[in-house]
Amino acid sequence: MSDDLLVQSHTGPYRVIFDEGLLGALGRVATAECHVLVDANIARLYAEPLRDILANPQTLQIEATEENKSIERIVDVIRLLVDNRIRRHHTLVAIGGGVIQDITCFIASTLLRGVNWRFIPTTLLAQADSCIGSKSSVNLGSTKNILGTFHPPCEVHLCTGFLDTLEEKDVRSGIGEIIKVHAIDSANSYDRLASDFGRMATDRELLRTYIHGALRIKQRFIEADEFDRGIRNVFNYGHSFGHAIESATDFAVPHGVAVTMGMEIANRVSTLRGTLSEANYRRMRPMLIENCGAFALTPVAVDSLLAALAKDKKNTTDRLVVILPVGDHAAITRVEIANDAAFRQQCEAALAGLRV
Amino acid sequence: MSDDLLVQSHTGPYRVIFDEGLLGALGRVATAECHVLVDANIARLYAEPLRDILANPQTLQIEATEENKSIERIVDVIRLLVDNRIRRHHTLVAIGGGVIQDITCFIASTLLRGVNWRFIPTTLLAQADSCIGSKSSVNLGSTKNILGTFHPPCEVHLCTGFLDTLEEKDVRSGIGEIIKVHAIDSANSYDRLASDFGRMATDRELLRTYIHGALRIKQRFIEADEFDRGIRNVFNYGHSFGHAIESATDFAVPHGVAVTMGMEIANRVSTLRGTLSEANYRRMRPMLIENCGAFALTPVAVDSLLAALAKDKKNTTDRLVVILPVGDHAAITRVEIANDAAFRQQCEAALAGLRV
Repeated sequence: MSDDLLVQSHTGPYRVIFDEGLLGALGRVATAECHVLVDANIARLYAEPLRDILANPQTLQIEATEENKSIERIVDVIRLLVDNRIRRHHTLVAIGGGVIQDITCFIASTLLRGVNWRFIPTTLLAQADSCIGSKSSVNLGSTKNILGTFHPPCEVHLCTGFLDTLEEKDVRSGIGEIIKVHAIDSANSYDRLASDFGRMATDRELLRTYIHGALRIKQRFIEADEFDRGIRNVFNYGHSFGHAIESATDFAVPHGVAVTMGMEIANRVSTLRGTLSEANYRRMRPMLIENCGAFALTPVAVDSLLAALAKDKKNTTDRLVVILPVGDHAAITRVEIANDAAFRQQCEAALAGLRV
Repeated sequence: MSDDLLVQSHTGPYRVIFDEGLLGALGRVATAECHVLVDANIARLYAEPLRDILANPQTLQIEATEENKSIERIVDVIRLLVDNRIRRHHTLVAIGGGVIQDITCFIASTLLRGVNWRFIPTTLLAQADSCIGSKSSVNLGSTKNILGTFHPPCEVHLCTGFLDTLEEKDVRSGIGEIIKVHAIDSANSYDRLASDFGRMATDRELLRTYIHGALRIKQRFIEADEFDRGIRNVFNYGHSFGHAIESATDFAVPHGVAVTMGMEIANRVSTLRGTLSEANYRRMRPMLIENCGAFALTPVAVDSLLAALAKDKKNTTDRLVVILPVGDHAAITRVEIANDAAFRQQCEAALAGLRV
């Protein structure tokens, strides 16, 4: 299809194939030399189209929990793959969202010093954002995302049919990342998305267009900076604060919603520091607040937020790297700031602003 | 120094620095932003030169056992590094042989999605062979080397002073890999080494020259094929059989000695298959048998050898990839063979030949 993307990476190019017929033909990914790792919830919801895959003794069903993307649990999965006699020329196939992606990508990058993997993302978050970019993130016990690798899939098969069974909070979560990517692209992109925002949840063709658009924007950045040493950093917009909210609320807030809250906090902080105009702040706020829904009311203590920020793997104790919208065009920019009393006050005000 | 090597890799070039003064100035590698992983035996033997490093609370002493290079134990080491607040801009420093290298390299490639590491190899095997080439190999329980990554150090500091405390078997082990590399280089290289072989253990300057020479030869291959997809395969000469001997004897035979036995087996098998002349076989045999010493008498059952070969991550059940010397110049060559009765007989004869 002319919609397909071809993404360049350090291991060669890989294709994102938009394939709305995939649900009717899933059997073709489960050849003898494939080991499928499938989200147990997807296995329950799509038992019929997945019948052949689920009947294959090499298929592993995994609950998509934070605990299961810990290195301790991943070692158990590796043991099963070795028992199933996985070989270097075999392929792992991930069917699920970000958790299944992280587990599969990490294993693919370390088992037998690297095997191929294919990805069938089933959440909006994975389809619109995480499915490209090479990264895996793995927990160590309760320490989130402290381990990881860069190992792109050899192919991504994208079918929006899977989105039919998403819960509302997971749609909000995916839209959060779509908002982020468009904010990074330009103020115009952001405003166009804002004008379509009300129809996103009900108009599948519109959503599909924005999934494609978000991947196209992200593609530019990851191809220029696959290993996240420079310009790709701006994709952490909303994430430093978002991760802190996730960890401060014990993951009660879905990732992309926490990122949406994080963007609102970042915008407010930037305005309070004098680097973003009040007008730009007010322009961006409505879509963010609307996408948060009731989650915006989740209480978050400023102490938890600051403690989680300081733990981020990009930060040291007294200097923080944050991504803020800056200047007349609200350009998403990497900023190094002091972790001081003024910053604490700005965070407090921004958190309070979420609940107004 | 003009002796230094600059090795190209996918993460950029790295230097092997020949520094005979290193033992007197080890303190300089233990800055605040370093986390040192040191072989516990080296810590005991070099307590005085390592005093500052061992006093640093960020230094971890690790016994260089097979068990400790399992992913299960490595997770414990990662936990200690996280407790010691390791950050992405910090550097791991490995001081030890292959086991400490594997542990450090694997952690460096997965922790915080990649940190830098420096290597001070203390065994002849690590100095003459494993210190360059990017690879880590990690066990899963008792399944050897099933996990691994490619992540070169940012610097190698090579000081032959550490070799003073090696046991004889570990000198034989290192020389085994030196023999292998010279066999790969050419029949002339092999014969030159054979003529110097008797003085290697006592003439430090000569040994140092051969360490340097072995790294120079290996450099050509790893720069051309870092990810071991093609010509680098020949570095498995002696290794398919060698790994099988290690596993069949529960690691009673040191790695490089098992490789030496493996080369003799490979040569004999090649002669029995008609791909190596008897003259070439006899030319190569004396140095191999001499380097094995009494280990050549270790009983190895052909069944264990074949079972271990079939488990090798490069092999399937009925086809085996072996590296054999082939043709008039005993060129070390990748050969695919059937795992059949004839091959079994050839292995039996080759094993018997070790003990003659």
